[in-house]
Amino acid sequence: MNIYATEKSQHYLAQVSTFINEKVLPIETELLNQNRKLNHNSDWTQWQLIPQIEALKEQAKASGLWNLFLPDATYGQGLTCVEYAPLAEEMGRSMLAPEIFNCNAPDTGNMEVLYHFGDEHQQSQWLTPLLNGEIRSVFAMTEPDVASSDATNMQATIIDDGDDVIINGRKWWSTGLGHPKSKVMIFMGLSHPDAPKHQRHSMVLVPMNTPGVNIKRMLTAYGDYDAPYGHGEMELINVRVPKSHVIMGLGKGFEIAQGRLGPGRIHHCMRAIGAAERALSLAIERGLSRTAFGQPIIQLGGNLERIAHARMAIDQARLLTLNAAWKVDNQGIKHAMTEISAIKVVVPNMLTQVVDMAIQLHGGAGMNHDSPLAGFATMARSLRLADGPDEVHTAMVSRLEMAKYK
Amino acid sequence: MNIYATEKSQHYLAQVSTFINEKVLPIETELLNQNRKLNHNSDWTQWQLIPQIEALKEQAKASGLWNLFLPDATYGQGLTCVEYAPLAEEMGRSMLAPEIFNCNAPDTGNMEVLYHFGDEHQQSQWLTPLLNGEIRSVFAMTEPDVASSDATNMQATIIDDGDDVIINGRKWWSTGLGHPKSKVMIFMGLSHPDAPKHQRHSMVLVPMNTPGVNIKRMLTAYGDYDAPYGHGEMELINVRVPKSHVIMGLGKGFEIAQGRLGPGRIHHCMRAIGAAERALSLAIERGLSRTAFGQPIIQLGGNLERIAHARMAIDQARLLTLNAAWKVDNQGIKHAMTEISAIKVVVPNMLTQVVDMAIQLHGGAGMNHDSPLAGFATMARSLRLADGPDEVHTAMVSRLEMAKYK
Amino acid sequence: MNIYATEKSQHYLAQVSTFINEKVLPIETELLNQNRKLNHNSDWTQWQLIPQIEALKEQAKASGLWNLFLPDATYGQGLTCVEYAPLAEEMGRSMLAPEIFNCNAPDTGNMEVLYHFGDEHQQSQWLTPLLNGEIRSVFAMTEPDVASSDATNMQATIIDDGDDVIINGRKWWSTGLGHPKSKVMIFMGLSHPDAPKHQRHSMVLVPMNTPGVNIKRMLTAYGDYDAPYGHGEMELINVRVPKSHVIMGLGKGFEIAQGRLGPGRIHHCMRAIGAAERALSLAIERGLSRTAFGQPIIQLGGNLERIAHARMAIDQARLLTLNAAWKVDNQGIKHAMTEISAIKVVVPNMLTQVVDMAIQLHGGAGMNHDSPLAGFATMARSLRLADGPDEVHTAMVSRLEMAKYK
Amino acid sequence: MNIYATEKSQHYLAQVSTFINEKVLPIETELLNQNRKLNHNSDWTQWQLIPQIEALKEQAKASGLWNLFLPDATYGQGLTCVEYAPLAEEMGRSMLAPEIFNCNAPDTGNMEVLYHFGDEHQQSQWLTPLLNGEIRSVFAMTEPDVASSDATNMQATIIDDGDDVIINGRKWWSTGLGHPKSKVMIFMGLSHPDAPKHQRHSMVLVPMNTPGVNIKRMLTAYGDYDAPYGHGEMELINVRVPKSHVIMGLGKGFEIAQGRLGPGRIHHCMRAIGAAERALSLAIERGLSRTAFGQPIIQLGGNLERIAHARMAIDQARLLTLNAAWKVDNQGIKHAMTEISAIKVVVPNMLTQVVDMAIQLHGGAGMNHDSPLAGFATMARSLRLADGPDEVHTAMVSRLEMAKYK
Repeated sequence: MNIYATEKSQHYLAQVSTFINEKVLPIETELLNQNRKLNHNSDWTQWQLIPQIEALKEQAKASGLWNLFLPDATYGQGLTCVEYAPLAEEMGRSMLAPEIFNCNAPDTGNMEVLYHFGDEHQQSQWLTPLLNGEIRSVFAMTEPDVASSDATNMQATIIDDGDDVIINGRKWWSTGLGHPKSKVMIFMGLSHPDAPKHQRHSMVLVPMNTPGVNIKRMLTAYGDYDAPYGHGEMELINVRVPKSHVIMGLGKGFEIAQGRLGPGRIHHCMRAIGAAERALSLAIERGLSRTAFGQPIIQLGGNLERIAHARMAIDQARLLTLNAAWKVDNQGIKHAMTEISAIKVVVPNMLTQVVDMAIQLHGGAGMNHDSPLAGFATMARSLRLADGPDEVHTAMVSRLEMAKYK
Repeated sequence: MNIYATEKSQHYLAQVSTFINEKVLPIETELLNQNRKLNHNSDWTQWQLIPQIEALKEQAKASGLWNLFLPDATYGQGLTCVEYAPLAEEMGRSMLAPEIFNCNAPDTGNMEVLYHFGDEHQQSQWLTPLLNGEIRSVFAMTEPDVASSDATNMQATIIDDGDDVIINGRKWWSTGLGHPKSKVMIFMGLSHPDAPKHQRHSMVLVPMNTPGVNIKRMLTAYGDYDAPYGHGEMELINVRVPKSHVIMGLGKGFEIAQGRLGPGRIHHCMRAIGAAERALSLAIERGLSRTAFGQPIIQLGGNLERIAHARMAIDQARLLTLNAAWKVDNQGIKHAMTEISAIKVVVPNMLTQVVDMAIQLHGGAGMNHDSPLAGFATMARSLRLADGPDEVHTAMVSRLEMAKYK
Repeated sequence: MNIYATEKSQHYLAQVSTFINEKVLPIETELLNQNRKLNHNSDWTQWQLIPQIEALKEQAKASGLWNLFLPDATYGQGLTCVEYAPLAEEMGRSMLAPEIFNCNAPDTGNMEVLYHFGDEHQQSQWLTPLLNGEIRSVFAMTEPDVASSDATNMQATIIDDGDDVIINGRKWWSTGLGHPKSKVMIFMGLSHPDAPKHQRHSMVLVPMNTPGVNIKRMLTAYGDYDAPYGHGEMELINVRVPKSHVIMGLGKGFEIAQGRLGPGRIHHCMRAIGAAERALSLAIERGLSRTAFGQPIIQLGGNLERIAHARMAIDQARLLTLNAAWKVDNQGIKHAMTEISAIKVVVPNMLTQVVDMAIQLHGGAGMNHDSPLAGFATMARSLRLADGPDEVHTAMVSRLEMAKYK
Repeated sequence: MNIYATEKSQHYLAQVSTFINEKVLPIETELLNQNRKLNHNSDWTQWQLIPQIEALKEQAKASGLWNLFLPDATYGQGLTCVEYAPLAEEMGRSMLAPEIFNCNAPDTGNMEVLYHFGDEHQQSQWLTPLLNGEIRSVFAMTEPDVASSDATNMQATIIDDGDDVIINGRKWWSTGLGHPKSKVMIFMGLSHPDAPKHQRHSMVLVPMNTPGVNIKRMLTAYGDYDAPYGHGEMELINVRVPKSHVIMGLGKGFEIAQGRLGPGRIHHCMRAIGAAERALSLAIERGLSRTAFGQPIIQLGGNLERIAHARMAIDQARLLTLNAAWKVDNQGIKHAMTEISAIKVVVPNMLTQVVDMAIQLHGGAGMNHDSPLAGFATMARSLRLADGPDEVHTAMVSRLEMAKYK
């Protein structure tokens, strides 16, 4: 019954923090620029990895700062949601950090799916190399032709065909699709159109090199490919995989999705809180270092009030997320539905506001890639849509509230 | 390290909740109407107490639901801030409840001052009857002639005169000034104009019947006197009291004020959160019971989104306040300055929004006194000014944030 | 094709402005206080008029500053909506001014109804004394038992009975009900329950002293009766009036209501804009005259930004309203539906924000009746519900917008 | 005294509108995609023009839809600000349209500077080819090393050296710097450091190919280069140009800037209003065409309220801008300072909100370049900083407001 960090958590936090401060932040801009230079174009087949990032991953792994997100004492470090939360926040301060600790989306969510719901064979084939950081993975859910805010709209098909399933359909905003190491995707589609609404869909593991998987293009988000990590569009035409690739059996798609979503939300919300703290910090530093009308600009107009409002919004968002984490840990996801929906609305909107304020204090320097702010802004914008738009989660909060009055 | 209710707290919470639900809410409207009928005019000398409320106080006292706010195991029940917080929230659901449990402002704050800083004589003379609910008290700080947002502006004088002090000055928004049982005030004024800024002021106990204490008028807040509890204006002309009435000695005003403010803030913020929960609940019930354009009005337009936003805002405000309480309990007020300022800004603004939404759903019925909403709205408005306007506390949050960058 | 004041309008504006500045504002506080002293209680039968206000009305009438709202060159001064708009704004600066120029609600709307839709007999009996300022009138539409946001919910009945109609039902928030000079009401009720939705209701002139008209109570808005002008609740039991009192014939209620609403909205919105200008002005004056932390408080934090935002919001709201007025004048109400709904949403919300800011700058002095701000705040709150809540008009704007896409 | 379109304006509006609807919008996505393919990289020396756009420019020119922004009957069509405003709005609906009519920034502003302040030689050398659309130009004001919100901070130097001036300094966010046809820039710098604050700076025409002009890089705005139109950074080292290139003489920089800013603001604000109308339209169309939870998504939650709020915000912003245009036309820029600052704050913020809402209704499709929304979002973000951040203009509005109280 405690939302504050435990000793164990603080131990890892100190290490993660030191690692980021000493090894990531000093070269962050250089790495990001190198990344953009290497991967500046829309032809994802040319995208490359940055060797320095790979080297940092090896160091993090060697230091035991690896897979901290996984609540398993063998594969990860056995941290609860509440214990991992401050680490996710710390990693969120830099766009590069989560990957370095093998704690990046969508791999974390995919690993959790495999960990909780995969069978032994699926785990050995895909979970192990993911945990080792040898490969990356894709989560394919959103479709271009339907309103994905209603997940039951999903219309890509997974047809039972003897020992195999046959997959057809288009997906987009599939994160990591163009990454050189992407080897497998978890694909969600319609297998039982006549079943009850939440038993119609299935999740299948599809190796990226399966015939019929056609990557069409990478997508910009506000002009940025975020290569090599960003999002893509693909079409699957008569893609055939063995039925053993289905996770938990056909028709279990929503059951798995439900289990995937709780910790995943908490992770990305905490990372967003870290990004907000970084943005606030950058805002203050900029505001103190630049002068206009005879004063540091932080002193002008309502700037200090905006700093205070950012502090209050961040602190509230963090407590809301930690409380959700505590509920997930102690009462289970089913008792944390309001909390898990609420953070999905509150945190990205808070990040949007804080980053916007920080950009405003930076002037033009806030809009290009000399600072991490434009990247955070795009991330915040995406987070208000990814995993369901604000409105869907707001509606969930009100539905749960209204249910108390029946 | 736990912001959730302890067993001890939950034990009292259940009792307080039952008491309010069974004994207060069913007659709340009747009592409030009776109150308004008895005390409808501006002549406070005619204001009267409602016997039923006095009777409920006796019952609460007999049940041990009395002075729960005081963290002393003898005088109160030895509850920490975190433990008392949910009780304050519960009491906040009804404007009448706090007094019934002897947990109403400004008496709670005054009792805390006497408990922590009063000497034995002051305690036996004033703390004991206050704890017994025999008398009520006034806190006199705000002045009509200066911007009280800067407390060092206070210019009423407390002059050292041998065995006595002599007090002169005008005060207003002195809560409880017209109450028939008001017997003493804690008066803050300037005693050492040349001392360092925070050692210039003193607090003195002044019996209400001391010659020279002239009550000028009661003040309406948005047209309401909130009789017999409301706020008044007075002038003190050459009021002489023995120096033994000075609390802690001359020049200690700000030191005492600082100690008074932490728990007091948490109490009124938790009460405001209770009021917000009540308003949300009334909004939903109203929205379900009225029909327009063929649907319950709760279903129309963005009403359900507003319900969700209210839920999310309340939950965040509560966690922020509980976290502040935890810090006060465990690290002391000096380490909770950001938190104590933040809740002062966040909670009343949240209450303002939630109540406004509830009124909007009630139509005209939300504006008159048929529901508690208009009362809550006025309370919310007052709370954004009382104990310092939003802007002062926002400035405090930014000042503390900026201090990290020096 | 001109939303700016004409010469004719500016001529009257100068006179109205001088009258208000010289004769109303200097004694405004005194009159309001006298009003509150005379009419402080809930017993409306004791409410009295202030002789000084009656005298000012005579002066205004003698100066030809009378019935300026009426676009008739004989009864009024033949001003268009656009021409009257700046006068309404000027009058809105003081709560007392509109009545002094015989331009107060609900009489203006009622006079317009009689002017446009009344027959000769109805006009000579009621319009003439209203135009002369000899009597006042009531508009009875809102009902306590249904969601009045959907006007078709109205369930008070007007039954055709030979030469008479018989009226039954409860109404509340009937403005001016307790005023000593209230002599007649326009009562809207259900006469043809089986007709098409907008032909079911009728409007009838009911003299206040008709047997069966039972005034139950006056209603507080945020604690204030706004005596003797405020709102009341009444029950009509078998009230019988001659059928000749029906306006335009039975079943024409909505047709009349539609005609009443355009200019009425523009009038009250312009008055609200005047109130906002006054509030902004008071905010600046207060902010310049009080000092905290070594500076005039207007210089602190984001106060100057709030001043600028108030200026920008007021200017936008004014232009929106003038544009609506121009459309009403030049294209007719039916082509100004978006505009007339939009101002109903925008202006009261703008006033709410500007007054709230001004109160915050006044501290406690903004909440009691020493300044007009608390009165403006209550007016703003009422205006967000009166004549339909914000949400109904927002829905109308979106409905008209969506209609473009069919 | 009329803010509505004249017949002359409506005549051009109809033509511009037809041109855009028939010739631009149908191929807009194709052109934008072609643009991104041709100009996808950061190496601006490789950037190319799209022949179809050049062809459309020829057609527009041939139709007399050319230089409509210029209030000169010979060079342009002699339209006033109020008359041009609706045309600018119409052009703003597509990111490609302004250039097609030779009405794009920064060329319009630069042409106005040359038109109003250039001497005959400067005009024949640069204004003529700009008016003909043969070349493009750059405006170089913002600097990376100082807070450009205070324009007097500008520290690039323009040194008087006999018949020449010598220029040194860094500039960034210089729009159009990488465009293949950019031939000249208007460069603003410090020439008289000891003069009164607003007489220290000068504007000089610098041909892009002058030795010492070093383009360093193009800048992304939220990841997008907006090639070939976007913004760049350059360093000028001992750049020498004849003194005849100085506009109006040394020390006149702020005088020219002042003259440049009024109409320029109105133009970009009207374009932003056109973008907002387009975004609103796209939002509604998307909301009607996609289904979730059994309904068109426009019907869900508060979506229709958001549509209404967008309509009300756009209409207010347009009226505010038209009123500013009217003041510029009729009373001169000096009497329109509040209005010109107000629109700079109000319009880009309105656009930000409307586009954000539209993106939210589009889901992922709102974030990539399949729709114009992401481009509008980036434009809106830039406009809150370009030509001074919101805060500077908000401060100007409050300064002018406060000046009334002296």
